[in-house]
Amino acid sequence: MEIKIAGDSHGTKMIGLIEEIPAGLKIDEQKINDNLRRRQLGYGRGERMKIETDQVQVIAGTWNGVTTGAPVVIEIENKARNPINTNDQRHVPRPGHGDYTGWSKYRLTDLNIYTERNSARWTCVLTALGSIAEQFLDHFSIEIMSFVSSIGSICVENSMFEEIQRNFDFYIQKRDASPVQCPFDDVSERMIEEINEKALKQDTTLGGSIKTFAINVQPGLGSYANVLNRVDSKIGKYFMSIPSVKGVFIGLEDVSLPGNQYHDPFILQNGKINRTSNHAGGIEAGITNGENIIVTTYFKPISTLAKPLDSINLETKENVKAPYIRSDSVILPAATVITECTLALILMEEIIDGFGNDNIELIKERYFSKYSKNN
Amino acid sequence: MEIKIAGDSHGTKMIGLIEEIPAGLKIDEQKINDNLRRRQLGYGRGERMKIETDQVQVIAGTWNGVTTGAPVVIEIENKARNPINTNDQRHVPRPGHGDYTGWSKYRLTDLNIYTERNSARWTCVLTALGSIAEQFLDHFSIEIMSFVSSIGSICVENSMFEEIQRNFDFYIQKRDASPVQCPFDDVSERMIEEINEKALKQDTTLGGSIKTFAINVQPGLGSYANVLNRVDSKIGKYFMSIPSVKGVFIGLEDVSLPGNQYHDPFILQNGKINRTSNHAGGIEAGITNGENIIVTTYFKPISTLAKPLDSINLETKENVKAPYIRSDSVILPAATVITECTLALILMEEIIDGFGNDNIELIKERYFSKYSKNN
Amino acid sequence: MEIKIAGDSHGTKMIGLIEEIPAGLKIDEQKINDNLRRRQLGYGRGERMKIETDQVQVIAGTWNGVTTGAPVVIEIENKARNPINTNDQRHVPRPGHGDYTGWSKYRLTDLNIYTERNSARWTCVLTALGSIAEQFLDHFSIEIMSFVSSIGSICVENSMFEEIQRNFDFYIQKRDASPVQCPFDDVSERMIEEINEKALKQDTTLGGSIKTFAINVQPGLGSYANVLNRVDSKIGKYFMSIPSVKGVFIGLEDVSLPGNQYHDPFILQNGKINRTSNHAGGIEAGITNGENIIVTTYFKPISTLAKPLDSINLETKENVKAPYIRSDSVILPAATVITECTLALILMEEIIDGFGNDNIELIKERYFSKYSKNN
Amino acid sequence: MEIKIAGDSHGTKMIGLIEEIPAGLKIDEQKINDNLRRRQLGYGRGERMKIETDQVQVIAGTWNGVTTGAPVVIEIENKARNPINTNDQRHVPRPGHGDYTGWSKYRLTDLNIYTERNSARWTCVLTALGSIAEQFLDHFSIEIMSFVSSIGSICVENSMFEEIQRNFDFYIQKRDASPVQCPFDDVSERMIEEINEKALKQDTTLGGSIKTFAINVQPGLGSYANVLNRVDSKIGKYFMSIPSVKGVFIGLEDVSLPGNQYHDPFILQNGKINRTSNHAGGIEAGITNGENIIVTTYFKPISTLAKPLDSINLETKENVKAPYIRSDSVILPAATVITECTLALILMEEIIDGFGNDNIELIKERYFSKYSKNN
Repeated sequence: MEIKIAGDSHGTKMIGLIEEIPAGLKIDEQKINDNLRRRQLGYGRGERMKIETDQVQVIAGTWNGVTTGAPVVIEIENKARNPINTNDQRHVPRPGHGDYTGWSKYRLTDLNIYTERNSARWTCVLTALGSIAEQFLDHFSIEIMSFVSSIGSICVENSMFEEIQRNFDFYIQKRDASPVQCPFDDVSERMIEEINEKALKQDTTLGGSIKTFAINVQPGLGSYANVLNRVDSKIGKYFMSIPSVKGVFIGLEDVSLPGNQYHDPFILQNGKINRTSNHAGGIEAGITNGENIIVTTYFKPISTLAKPLDSINLETKENVKAPYIRSDSVILPAATVITECTLALILMEEIIDGFGNDNIELIKERYFSKYSKNN
Repeated sequence: MEIKIAGDSHGTKMIGLIEEIPAGLKIDEQKINDNLRRRQLGYGRGERMKIETDQVQVIAGTWNGVTTGAPVVIEIENKARNPINTNDQRHVPRPGHGDYTGWSKYRLTDLNIYTERNSARWTCVLTALGSIAEQFLDHFSIEIMSFVSSIGSICVENSMFEEIQRNFDFYIQKRDASPVQCPFDDVSERMIEEINEKALKQDTTLGGSIKTFAINVQPGLGSYANVLNRVDSKIGKYFMSIPSVKGVFIGLEDVSLPGNQYHDPFILQNGKINRTSNHAGGIEAGITNGENIIVTTYFKPISTLAKPLDSINLETKENVKAPYIRSDSVILPAATVITECTLALILMEEIIDGFGNDNIELIKERYFSKYSKNN
Repeated sequence: MEIKIAGDSHGTKMIGLIEEIPAGLKIDEQKINDNLRRRQLGYGRGERMKIETDQVQVIAGTWNGVTTGAPVVIEIENKARNPINTNDQRHVPRPGHGDYTGWSKYRLTDLNIYTERNSARWTCVLTALGSIAEQFLDHFSIEIMSFVSSIGSICVENSMFEEIQRNFDFYIQKRDASPVQCPFDDVSERMIEEINEKALKQDTTLGGSIKTFAINVQPGLGSYANVLNRVDSKIGKYFMSIPSVKGVFIGLEDVSLPGNQYHDPFILQNGKINRTSNHAGGIEAGITNGENIIVTTYFKPISTLAKPLDSINLETKENVKAPYIRSDSVILPAATVITECTLALILMEEIIDGFGNDNIELIKERYFSKYSKNN
Repeated sequence: MEIKIAGDSHGTKMIGLIEEIPAGLKIDEQKINDNLRRRQLGYGRGERMKIETDQVQVIAGTWNGVTTGAPVVIEIENKARNPINTNDQRHVPRPGHGDYTGWSKYRLTDLNIYTERNSARWTCVLTALGSIAEQFLDHFSIEIMSFVSSIGSICVENSMFEEIQRNFDFYIQKRDASPVQCPFDDVSERMIEEINEKALKQDTTLGGSIKTFAINVQPGLGSYANVLNRVDSKIGKYFMSIPSVKGVFIGLEDVSLPGNQYHDPFILQNGKINRTSNHAGGIEAGITNGENIIVTTYFKPISTLAKPLDSINLETKENVKAPYIRSDSVILPAATVITECTLALILMEEIIDGFGNDNIELIKERYFSKYSKNN
């Protein structure tokens, strides 16, 4: 399986492609659009999100709405198109953004160019492709969900996330009711206050973190054939690709615990193999272990600031202020759906690699047949 | 560029391969062996490390010690060979190790099999290949170094790592003098005490963290062509592949800071582009920005415990204790060289992709020519 | 560099993507459209070619018409859209087509589905992407051209192709004036007669062959790092991918000659390294040798026949006739531009791998600098 | 699945690696050695073949001789080691060999260097890896065999290859009894005479062709997800990689036949889907169709000649004769095993991609289950 993500932030449209997706998967565009809508909401988002109501179109790889084995291509129109006059070059890079690094690499002088690839606009494609992966995983009863765990200095206690795992459905409803995608009322309110006080009033931005879970994942997904391409490596790769992400953690973050407290004992319960804890976050030695997969992702505050930082003009070599370009203040709430979709893509790939690439009905048969045996 | 890592932990030898390494690079085996030696030392390591004194042999891809453009292959003999009697199957998985997940995937009944791929033995190959990458990077004046930043509950203050960056050479000497690869005498001593009290005396193990730096990296290494394969994605991928690593961070970990304090202002000093801080850790939008690359890696305590945890027998379906297999207590000190080598491989790849794959003299010419221009 | 080709033959549009194309390349859509026009012409083509006048749109990866380093995406509308009623399933496979093999793999029952991927419609994307590659190669003075060398039993003598290489410009004009893209008037006429007599009058189809040349290619493009991915392997791979192609040859096809007559002696002429023949077809040991690259491609007659062959109904298990679906009689003339574009993509990739992926001006500088030295 | 081939022709050993081979495959080294022996025999081979009796060692990826899912690594010692004095540089390239192209790419001055990668020595690794693939395919009842179809001007009639397909076992015995691997006594004798008269007596070399067959291949192996990576594309790629190969053909080479005679009608016989001919060579639209796969490979005469051709000294820029380096006269007989092993690797990959990468017993179950249904 391979995915491609293309499209310029202010071009006519964004494009996504999944290659080697099996035949026979019914794709529901409405479910993709629902996810795209989640990506545009959340307290602290800027104007662009109101302009755009992203709608996906599956333009290739299906027949009567069902995948054919050919590459699935989706497109999403850019409604906020070309506000930038290409005659009006920009030479002042924004600290934290990809203006300066883009120029250092590609050596085209107008810094506006690099925003086309470096803005987070392309995550709408990641979301759409991952939504297809979620529909694939539905057939294998695998569910994925994310929650905002911190914004600025306001955090959910880790123990609360143990609570969430006892009743996902309830907490997803609570999350969806929160403007910051945080399922605990009190924390949610404090996060909103944090955004108001620390970001909006100060013309600045805030970062934070997200916890992502996958449940009902069978043990044995992944492969150790290539030690640099195991499930945890892929999580490192794909999650670190999400714009603003600076840190990725799998399972329990407190590595100061000694080994006998960190590792998860096995226990036989009603003839089934269980664990008395899940510090490993569902992955041991790069392969799934049957417990919930748990990934924590850390986002820096976004880099376009209403009250800009010091910068320089690369042409005139003068110290100047960075430009302000319309943007969000906090993207954490919108990013929950992005991390879900990212994890979905990884797990879909592992199932295809593990069980074949022909037809989803055959793959399901093979999957459930394997796990019905001596497990 | 592509690398392959193979070999079974108790087989005759470990094998590494680098494909698409340019011609003309002189490889010094002694420098590789020095790094292999570092990988075997450190307070808290087990018996195997005394048995083995790893020695690399470059067995292909060179002519008179100089690369030819053909794949470079290295091998390292396994001196601690086959202590395991293959008639004596094991059916009890160790919590935290890859025994159970390996069985879930591959369905061969003897769990000893999975240790062959899942033990950290293969990191000797990663170290050897990365040592070649370090020799490649020498030609571009890029240096890489790592330090232990925490073991168990004992941490170096982050501000001390700012101090280190002002005088790398001095602190490397200090690090090399510390049995735990921590360059601050007082912290180093407390770490040793922590190992004694919390790990050795309790028959358990400890995790911790490592900071890795790359200096003299030019801005503009990497590419945004594939948004899922930028330098930060590769760091996520490769560092998360290192055994026991559960978390990876690039740059400043405190994402609770608002945007105006997090991002690194530009300033022109003596006609040169500089930054007044380096919270980005040398990477913006997935491309190097010319500042020091800073990666923090979090290691769980290793999973083989002298006082074992609860487990089950997969054949008899009984609750039993996990087996104890000779092992280390703390691998942080040994892992500093591994994270250095990992980062070196990533940067070598970016230079080859950016400047060509024919001959190192030509590549150097192109690299220094680009960076001598309007920068 | 990587390319992706997607789109269903009767969907709304076809999509192509090139990843890792350097920044700074001006793309001329008119030149792409000229090539798309060539792909639709030629004596013996069917109705669809009149319906469609393919027009490319570059929808991503450029700024003011110049590449930015981001993936270039092109789309081409399908004007002959959905003539197939998806309620009207087909169960009778056409011999020679991908109906039966598609069903064997993907197990969706309506055979119409497989035509969406298996018809040659996608070669319009290959042509568009290859046209961009040709524009890239222009900067390196590399030119590529193809000629029809046989249709049915009518062949151009091989010696005539030696003649062509002495004056490409003249013979390209002659080719363009021929309805069958064959630059020799008499042979061209006999080919037309062959199509009339052997194909059209008999309600059948004809195959043949094409010779493709690349000139002004420097020696040393390619790499032996991966022996399974050298220039000749790529030619085998990409040319064999073109629909209907069953055979691919590089250089002189008469392998009955002994070695001393087959191989191309070196000679020094005016201080320059030359060869007294070019039987190798420009490639030795998988790397270019500075002579014209020469590839011969053999096409089977296309498989959709107006007077159909015997087939079976896969549902009812009855012997029946294959269906007739609107099609061409001879595609050789239209395929000359396809083989040109295919070779262009291979050579662009080799230049990027050899000289870097940042900016075309830098790459040119490096290329011409290398070849100005001791060559 | 991925394979790597490394090792220098005169280094200590050759190395091969297969990644993503499923667990549970018993590897029989003797069968690999039998194939390696075939690769060294044949009328017209030179001295080196007598020096070497290649023996494989599986050094990683197995446990008690059974694959574990980890990369399988094999090594083969080079007995004809380092006859070349590295102080004695060579500057005169052999026409047809990779000396000049290697230098053009890599720019190391001693041309002896390029022989290390460009000689056909590495095909012993290809043979060993392909022999493992053959053992994999045994489990799926797929058999592969090759025959010499021409040497110099002496050819087997194509109709004789139709004869062979009626009784493979008989003709394999005949082939094995022929010093030139040609199963027809009269042709075999004329080939030997051709070698004597045209090659040995004239101090030159001869090329020719080989036909390779795969039987009992199920329909539906391969994928059209990536149109540039279908089974025929892979055949083009891998077969064109074999040293000396200049042409590759799948199925019937006479493309002058009209479509109604070229394509293979379907017929229902005893409820089974059959074809009345197999001109497609077992592949339609890049996916297997259940008939025998037939590949013809054309080899140029090898390039090292006892009576050398004109060349030049790249250092002194003088016209001189090419050097003579110990070599073979005809490699066709030895190459039959190479083409078999090449095809085996392709088919193993298709089965893994199609049915999963975990354990061969599970993969077999899935494969035979799919093909027991409605086929």
